[in-house]
Amino acid sequence: LGYLGVYYKRNPKNFLRNLSKADRQKLLEQLKSQYRQIVLSYFANDKNLNNKIDEYVNTAFFGDIPVTRIVEIHMDLMDNFSKQLKLEGRSEDVLLDYRLTLIDTLAHLCEMYRRSIPRESWGE
Amino acid sequence: LGYLGVYYKRNPKNFLRNLSKADRQKLLEQLKSQYRQIVLSYFANDKNLNNKIDEYVNTAFFGDIPVTRIVEIHMDLMDNFSKQLKLEGRSEDVLLDYRLTLIDTLAHLCEMYRRSIPRESWGE
Repeated sequence: LGYLGVYYKRNPKNFLRNLSKADRQKLLEQLKSQYRQIVLSYFANDKNLNNKIDEYVNTAFFGDIPVTRIVEIHMDLMDNFSKQLKLEGRSEDVLLDYRLTLIDTLAHLCEMYRRSIPRESWGE
Repeated sequence: LGYLGVYYKRNPKNFLRNLSKADRQKLLEQLKSQYRQIVLSYFANDKNLNNKIDEYVNTAFFGDIPVTRIVEIHMDLMDNFSKQLKLEGRSEDVLLDYRLTLIDTLAHLCEMYRRSIPRESWGE
């Protein structure tokens, strides 16, 4: 609770929708790459997992990425994994476990937005 | 994108942490009941599903419910379902599907917080 009311300065110049086409592509590739690393670490007992999630959430927050896009990045990655597992003749059950990764990521991002609402705007 | 920058007035008097013990209990029971309805409707082709999710997300937003609590409400409900399924000798596989319900709910809530950040605070 100590962090409540923390106010994060965001620069709209860095928002996905305000970027040039090239920079937009770059930011989306960065997000995909960061999320892929999170998924690969998620059940691997990686001590840096929380840092990876924080960095991804920061990228999403400061880029003001629509939340549907965050879900899409997950779905696209799962599609790729699914194709690979099929090629290797392996079960796709593991993909269900990665829903936990998305839940965890969304919960972090949502909490960051919750805490970013400036105190003076709370109607006090 | 039309809704971006919408600003929702919240009254801190209604925040979970500022309520009396009795009212806090009442709000949590309301959330649990609303979420249970969402889960029961989720794969039932319920035309009111989106309304139910919107109402739940509104309750969470205006009560400034910590996001961990939203995840807990899901986990507690799944625990109850799990016990019931075991008693009935049925498979618990369905509980994995309900992770989609939590993902959907968190995505809605997160998007509401994202859009609630006042425009004038965007650093423009």
